[in-house]
This record gives sequence, structure tokens and C-alpha cells, in this order.
Amino acid sequence: MVEHSGLDIMCLNKYCHSSSSSSSSEPDKKVFTKLKLNLSGDYPRKNAEILSGQYGTNVLLIGAALMLAIAHHGPSVREEHLLSFVSCLMLLQLMWMMWYILVRDRQTNSRTEKDVHATTCWIRGGLTLLALLSLIMDAFRIGYYVGYRSCVSAVLGVYPVIHATHTIAQVHFLWFHIKDVIKSFETFERFGVIHAVFTNLLLWCNGVMSEAEHFLNNHKRRLSALGYGNLTVVHSEPHCNCTTSTCSMFSSSLFYLYPFNVEYHIFVSAMLFVMWKNIGRTIDLSSNRKRQATKTQGLTVGPVLGLLALASTIGILVVYVTHVEESLQTRQSAISMFYIYGIVMLAFMCSAGASGLLIYRADHMPLDTSKNPSRQLDTELLFGSSIGSWLMSWCSIVAVLGTDSSPPYRWTNLIYSLLIVLEKYIQNLFVVESLYRQQEDGESEDPELPATPEIFSVTSSLAPPYDGIINRAYVTPDRTCVNMENSDQEESGQVYRCPRKPSEAPLPVGNKESEPPNIKRQILKNIAVFLIMCNISLWILPAFGCRPQYDNGLEQETFGFSIWTAVLNFAIPLNLFYRMHSVASLFEVFRRV
Amino acid sequence: MVEHSGLDIMCLNKYCHSSSSSSSSEPDKKVFTKLKLNLSGDYPRKNAEILSGQYGTNVLLIGAALMLAIAHHGPSVREEHLLSFVSCLMLLQLMWMMWYILVRDRQTNSRTEKDVHATTCWIRGGLTLLALLSLIMDAFRIGYYVGYRSCVSAVLGVYPVIHATHTIAQVHFLWFHIKDVIKSFETFERFGVIHAVFTNLLLWCNGVMSEAEHFLNNHKRRLSALGYGNLTVVHSEPHCNCTTSTCSMFSSSLFYLYPFNVEYHIFVSAMLFVMWKNIGRTIDLSSNRKRQATKTQGLTVGPVLGLLALASTIGILVVYVTHVEESLQTRQSAISMFYIYGIVMLAFMCSAGASGLLIYRADHMPLDTSKNPSRQLDTELLFGSSIGSWLMSWCSIVAVLGTDSSPPYRWTNLIYSLLIVLEKYIQNLFVVESLYRQQEDGESEDPELPATPEIFSVTSSLAPPYDGIINRAYVTPDRTCVNMENSDQEESGQVYRCPRKPSEAPLPVGNKESEPPNIKRQILKNIAVFLIMCNISLWILPAFGCRPQYDNGLEQETFGFSIWTAVLNFAIPLNLFYRMHSVASLFEVFRRV
Repeated sequence: MVEHSGLDIMCLNKYCHSSSSSSSSEPDKKVFTKLKLNLSGDYPRKNAEILSGQYGTNVLLIGAALMLAIAHHGPSVREEHLLSFVSCLMLLQLMWMMWYILVRDRQTNSRTEKDVHATTCWIRGGLTLLALLSLIMDAFRIGYYVGYRSCVSAVLGVYPVIHATHTIAQVHFLWFHIKDVIKSFETFERFGVIHAVFTNLLLWCNGVMSEAEHFLNNHKRRLSALGYGNLTVVHSEPHCNCTTSTCSMFSSSLFYLYPFNVEYHIFVSAMLFVMWKNIGRTIDLSSNRKRQATKTQGLTVGPVLGLLALASTIGILVVYVTHVEESLQTRQSAISMFYIYGIVMLAFMCSAGASGLLIYRADHMPLDTSKNPSRQLDTELLFGSSIGSWLMSWCSIVAVLGTDSSPPYRWTNLIYSLLIVLEKYIQNLFVVESLYRQQEDGESEDPELPATPEIFSVTSSLAPPYDGIINRAYVTPDRTCVNMENSDQEESGQVYRCPRKPSEAPLPVGNKESEPPNIKRQILKNIAVFLIMCNISLWILPAFGCRPQYDNGLEQETFGFSIWTAVLNFAIPLNLFYRMHSVASLFEVFRRV
Repeated sequence: MVEHSGLDIMCLNKYCHSSSSSSSSEPDKKVFTKLKLNLSGDYPRKNAEILSGQYGTNVLLIGAALMLAIAHHGPSVREEHLLSFVSCLMLLQLMWMMWYILVRDRQTNSRTEKDVHATTCWIRGGLTLLALLSLIMDAFRIGYYVGYRSCVSAVLGVYPVIHATHTIAQVHFLWFHIKDVIKSFETFERFGVIHAVFTNLLLWCNGVMSEAEHFLNNHKRRLSALGYGNLTVVHSEPHCNCTTSTCSMFSSSLFYLYPFNVEYHIFVSAMLFVMWKNIGRTIDLSSNRKRQATKTQGLTVGPVLGLLALASTIGILVVYVTHVEESLQTRQSAISMFYIYGIVMLAFMCSAGASGLLIYRADHMPLDTSKNPSRQLDTELLFGSSIGSWLMSWCSIVAVLGTDSSPPYRWTNLIYSLLIVLEKYIQNLFVVESLYRQQEDGESEDPELPATPEIFSVTSSLAPPYDGIINRAYVTPDRTCVNMENSDQEESGQVYRCPRKPSEAPLPVGNKESEPPNIKRQILKNIAVFLIMCNISLWILPAFGCRPQYDNGLEQETFGFSIWTAVLNFAIPLNLFYRMHSVASLFEVFRRV
């Protein structure tokens, strides 16, 4: 939230101006004209942020309240109410997007600024894929509605149609407008963008809730099969027969598509949030350069190990899902198998991340402190979404240490949980350091200007916090630079020295050093690829039904059924998001190193 | 998290230096010496933040896992385990504080930098009061332990002793060290401070849980008295007789002291968090000036209305608490009374906040964008803690609209809930705008230098993001300033003009304008005082047992007992914190305007 806008500067000038020119008129009249002027005119940026942020939060909370009421399965609030609310939100977002695109198209004469850090081609490509799967899901939903149309609410038919339209329009918006830096109608657009952010977040919540309910029902069914009894499974089946033959196929396939739909919405919402943070920002053009293509030579160990991990994961998934429904013996061995597999996997991931960090320690390099809302959000989301899985792990550890029963997987569960904590800890450090390190691009491509990146970064650190209002072309970097060699500051460890001009810079040492950095880079690239594959594996398992936390019974004994399912309903969606998000971040790392 | 440290600059220089000087030696050997050097040496700031932040989060999550296990009242994890864990954390914090104070005392020759924004005298005074009440609570706990010492765990006796020591040491730390900007052993101190932050947060969670359990037991007791039956009240009374005559007195008084203890810990944790954010920061001395004393003339309407609100609140509290335990009729009338009182109160608060915002709109002034972690945290906490009460309100609204039963307070509940949402919305906007507006201090005191604050703020916006490493005394502001009058930028609405030097600035208009701003100031001061009193009132009510959300039955019907109590256990502590925190923020507003 430490943002500084060009707007403030404008206001400052306006303020000075108005107070100096109208000082001779009566104060009362002036106050009122000022009031009129300012109510219609520009609104301070910080306030506009709070105003729209509060609006969005409340929209989400209304949805949350409706979902909580539905979770109770009471007579008064039903799913139709939530779906109509969400449909209204989507329609509003559609109208805003249409308005936005129309206005943008009219302003073809003035070039819109873009933030190149906002997203990358491959992220948009991935999202388009997820959107396609979401569209298939909508088709299934429509088919389901057609089958049961005589006895279900019309909302169940209208909702997938609106959702499909919304998905198509949104993907178009992502491809052509997500990088825009909005500079006109700022306050209004802020509301539009934040509305889109929270609509997607609500759609995510809705998907997560449906998924959680599905798993909970499965879990209860298993428990009653094992003889725990008296747990009522709530069936949401309609009270009439399906008129087509495909209804059950549709409803069972839906749950294999949910994970993709859920990831789609949370990713879109994160990207729109970056767009919201960018509103009114002035992009620092010097840091807005595109990166060159990634080299992929020397990539063998990482991909091979990663593919091995992925293959074994699919094997484990199949064995687990088929075995866990059977007798107690098979069930326990399936769970043990899962934990042993997890321990091996996580141990490899920990050592990969740790060696990456060691390489960074050996190769000291300044961190890039230029402003980049996208990167900052990535960091915060990684950290924030780890919390869910950490809580789950610590609960498991407490349960293992506190329990009296001793199933065969008791201690493997403990080690697995400890490794989960450690692995996220190390991986977050690795990703954050990789994203914040300055890039050594142009090392061999431009032998004439080897020191440029450093100097560029130093000048961009010297840039004003409102980021680039001064056209850097008019400022020579050495004018803003001052030598401070007084001993006081030297003692406290903070000395600032002038960035040297290219001509003064020491001669490139890249040729002599080119060998070791390249080996390091290759190792880092291999680590990144390996971690990507591992994270995909660890996403696949819970997304498609391998959730031993439901099945092992240890935690349920210590925490009770309701508290433990509440923890899982909170933690598992966050963990799924964490894995997907770290795949995206690690891919970014892969391209940077 | 957009932070920029002086450290990075050092590293940059070191990097350039080492790569230019040692380019002739063998690469392998160099890598290893570098590795050794960097492992022991300074660690990049961003990483140190993530490293320590993750540590703190995990400490809190271990505590949360223990608390969840205790909430189940199972046989394996008992309260003693949590208390011993928390005691260990407090001992660790005590050791760190002792170490810190000793090291600081030895370095008497070098002056420690202070961040004057970090806290104010009156906040520390208030915290000392709260700490005193916490000490009384510890005394009661020790008394309780002495009475039951034959049959309770020794941990229950050791814990209050450690807590009392911890409280005394921490208050000392708050008075003499909380403003320190740490510059030595940064990574280690980061761990120390974040450990202190999360220890206090865990103590807050623990207090909140005990309080929630107490209220839930009361609620269940009332429900069974009304004949709802079959709710088991869990008694945590020891299984032996008290050897002294004061045990029941101690245990019942404890619950009147809990609210103060809880607020104490959360406030300390927020202040320590600001200290953590300040580590390694270089304070911009120009913005580090102290404010002059506040004038209190013309303060009548606000305090009078506020006192009226406070007095009526205490009346309502007494009537509510005595009436709600009685027959259904009296109970319903008590609840109705509460809602009508709440509507009147909130309507006044909304109009006060809205008029404050209107005054700001009439008096356009640039926002202060200088860096101030304390203020930023205040804003985020206000916004974040509103979420609890917003969720509760939206749930009430859903319940009122969805329910079939129609108690007399149905529609007053609706209006009350809507006003709660609106009031927090407006109050947050008002507080944030007040804290971010530039101060017009020195308006009449320094007629020679009226434009200084503006110029200072412009130069500090031009300051490098790592905030003040360049000694501003060496830089003349006009050197960094460039006129850009090219029409392209003019169109997009972002023109930057040079800040004028004091000599060029327009002559002060303060003398002619001095009347209206003073009236505005007086109105704003009255609004702030009134809002302070109202927020204290709205804190007192839930803190001392007036929680109609438990008693009115509407929401419970729609959401079910378990979901609704979960929502309340999440929302009420956040709401209590919100009220206390907004009192502190509004007091800051009162001093600024």
C-alpha cells in the first residue's frame, strides 16, 4: 500500500495555485466552489483505493454469508440464491468490461501504457487452457440442467450460460487489456477492476465449497462403510428422474473438472489485482524492458528427475484411490505408501531448494528493489497460501505426538508433516530470492555495454517513489548522485557511492567469469524444472482425491470430526493454490536464471 | 513489503569491488571463499524478512494447532501443554530482551536512531495501564492456583509468574526501546523481534479463546434454561475443593480482566511489528520532526455528545445483562432495546464521519506519501479487522431476509447490521484520509517559512526509495528537478513541475485564511472526540457481555449452532480489536487535525 501517484503531485500544484489566486475573495464562497469542484474532480488515490477495496471486500463477504447459510442446508437459503447473486455480479462485470473495451477502442489515438511485468504469454496461455476446461464444465452443467429441467430452478440453467459468456469475455480481456495501466476515469475504473477481482474470488470460493462438500460426502460415506455410522450424507440430487441418459455422467465428470475451474478463477483474480494496483501508476520505462529468450542447454537432470516424480505420482494416485475404499488393512497400507512416497519426494525437493540457496549465497548479488506490484503480490501470495498447509502439518504433528493409538503410519506421518513445513520454508526462500535478484542479462550479448544493467538498476533505485514521472532521458544519473564519505555513516555500514558512468566502469570481467556462472545457471535451471514438476505432482494428488488427511484418522481422534474437517476445508484449497502458484513462480524463476 | 535497504547498496558495491579485484584468480577457489564469506556475512534484507517472518508464522501455527486440539476437549492434549509452550516462548523472549538491553547499554557511545512515528507517549501510557490490569490478573491466577494446588498441574502456577515477569520486562522495553531502529546484528535481531511479535499474538489468541469459551458456556447455559436442552456445558473446574475461601471470586473476576489483557497483547504485538519493519531502515530525518502540542479550544459539542453516548451505553449494558437471563418476553425487549440504541448511535457516528469527509473534500490538500510503516500498519489493521464485523453483519442480513420467524427485533436487526457496515466503511475512510493528509503545522507559528512543509514533502517524494541514505542537506532540491512541458505528457494528465524554493514560493495566505481552517479544525476535532467516545462505548458492550448475536436466535436458525458460533468466535475478537484500534487511530487524528 506504499504507493505514490502522479495525481498527488497534480493536486499539490492545483492546491498551491488555487490558494494563491483566490486569496482575495470571500472565504465562504470559495469553500463552496472548492467543494463543488473537488466532489466532481479527482479524488486522492489512497482514498480511492480504500473506497473500492472496501466495496470489493463487502461483495465477497455477502457471498461468504450466503455460502455459510447454504452449508447449513437449512430451508431458507438455497443454492439458487447464491447462484443468482453470483450471476448478477458476473453480468455487472461483463457490462464493465464491454464499457472498458469500447472506451479503449475509441481512444486509439493515445497510446495506452503497459506494464510488461503484469503477466507473461505462457501464463495467459495456461489460463486459456483452464478457461477451455471451464467451458466444458459449463456445457456439462447445461446438459445436467436439461436433463432435470422439470424439477430444478431455472437459475441452474441460466448460471452456466452466463458463466460461459463471462469466461469467454474475460479471456479476451486477459489477452488484450490486462497489462493496461489505466489513466482515465481512475476512480470509476478502480471500482470496475476490484469488482472483477472479487467476482472471481467469489467464484473461486464457490468452487472450493462445492469441492469440499463432495469430498466430505465421500469421506462420510467411507466412514459409514467402515461402521462409524450415524453421519448423515446430504444428497443434493433433484427429486425427479433425468430425461436424458447422461445426467449421472455429467454430475460425476464435473468433479474432475472442478480443480481446473477453481485454479482459473484464483489466477485471474490475482492478475486483475495487479491491474488494480497499477491504476494511475506511472511505469518506469527503463525497467520495462523485455527479457531475451531463455536458453535451454544443459537441461537433463532436472527434467528427468521431475518426470520420474510425475510418473510415480500418477502411479501412487491410482493405487491410493483404488485401495483406500477397501478393507482396513489395504487402507492402512495405502496411507503408509503415500507417506513414504511423500517423504522421498519432499526430501529431494528440500535438498534441491537448499542447494539453490547455497548457490545464491556463493554468488552474492544485490537485490532488485525497483517497484513491481506483480512480483510483490507473488511473494505475498506464496507466503500467505503456505499458512494453510503449515497449519495442517502442525495439527498432524500435535495429533501424532498426542495420540494413544499407533497405526503403522504414525511416525511416517510425523516425518512427512515436518518435511512439508521445511519444504515450503525453503522453497519460499528460494523463489523469493530468485525473483528479487538482479538479472545478469546482456552479459555476453552486449560486450560493449556490460555495466549497463547495474547502472540502470541503480538509477531506477534512485528514481522517485512515484516511479518515473521525471522522464529519465532528461536526467543525467550523476546529477542526482552525491558522495558522502563522512565517517559517521561509514561506521553504521551505510555508505552510498555514485554509480559510475559506462565509460568509468571497470572493464567487463564476463569473459573470464563466463564459465562458472553458466554452470551455476544450469544447476539453477535444473533445480527450477525439477521443483516445477514436483509441485505439479503435489497439486495432482489432492486435486484428484488423494487426501490421506481425511483417511488416516489420527487427527480426527485428537481434534474431533468438526474441527478437523473445518481445518481441512480451510487448508486444502489454500494448499492447492499454493502448489499451482509456485509452479507459476518457479517457471518465472526458470526464465530469469 | 516494498522495502529498500541501505544494505543492498553496500552489497552492490561489494559485488562490483570483488568482481573487479579478483578477476585474475582461479574461479573455483574464489567461489568457495565467497561462499564462506557470505554465509557468515550480511544476508539480503528481503530474505532475512521472509526467513524470520516464516519462523514467526510457524510459531503461531504450532500454538493454533494446540489450541484447536484443546477446543476438542480430548484426553490427549490439555491446557497445560499449551501453557508450557507459551511459557517457553515467553522465557525465550525475556532472554532476547535482556540480551538486547545489555548490548544497547554497552553501546552508549554510538547514538541509536529512533523512529518518532513508531509510538506516542499516550499509547505507551495506555499500554502501561493495561499491563497493570494484566498483572492483577496474574495475581488472581496465582491465588487460584494456591487454592487448588493439590489437584492441578504445577504449570498453572508457573505460568502466571512467568507472565507477570514478561509483562514487567516488556513494559520497560516499550518505554525505552520500542522506537529504536536496529542497525547491528540485523538478521539475529529480526528473529528476536518477530519472536516477540508472535509470542504476543499467541497470548492474544489464547486470551480470545478463553473468553470465547466462557461466553459459549454462558450461552449454552441460557439455552438449556430456555429448554433447548441437550447442549453439554464443559466445566473446567478442578476436581478438589479450594483450600482458601477466595477461589470462586478469583475465577469469576478473571473474566472481567480478560478484555484488557487481550487488548494489551494485540497492541504490543502491533508495536513490535512496526519495530520489526524498521530494522535496517534509514530514517528520513526531515520527516522525523515532533509535532507541537494540540490546542483544545472550542471543544464542547463532541465531548458532550460523546459522554452522553458513553453514559447511555453503561445504562444499556446493565439493563441488557440483567434482563437477558429472564423470561422470553423480557429477553426480547432487552434485545430490541439494544438494537434501537445501536441504530441511534451508529446513525450519529455515520453522519459525524460523513461530515468529516465532506470537510476534507472542500479543503483539497495533497496526501503525504512519505514512508511511515507505523501509519501503513494502522491502515491495514483497521481495514483487516473490519472484515470480522462485516461478515457478522452480512450474515445477520442474510438471516433476517431468509428467516420465516418474525421476532419483534427482526427489522431493527436488519437496519442495525446495515448501519454497522456503513459506519465502518465511513469511519475507515475518515481515519485513513486524516492520517494521510499533509499536516498544516507551523501555519501561524512560522510565518517566515510557510511553504516548507510542501517543499519538504516534494523532496522526500523525490527521495530514493531506500529512504534517506543521501543526506538531504547535501542535495539542493532544484538539482533533481526537471521541467517537462511536452504536450504528450500534458495530455495524459501527468505534468511534473518543480517545487519552488522558499524564496520563490507565493506569500503566505495563512493570515487571511486563518479563520475558516480553524473552524474546520475545530469541527474535525469535535468529530474525532465524539467518534472516540462512541468507539469506546461499542467496545465496552461486547467486552462485558452484551452480545445480542448470541441471544437473538435469528442467525442461529439460518446458520445452525456450530457455524454461527464459529463465525462469532472469529468475528467478535476482531471487532473488539477494531474498536480499540480505531480509538487509538482517532486519537492520533485528533492530535493531527
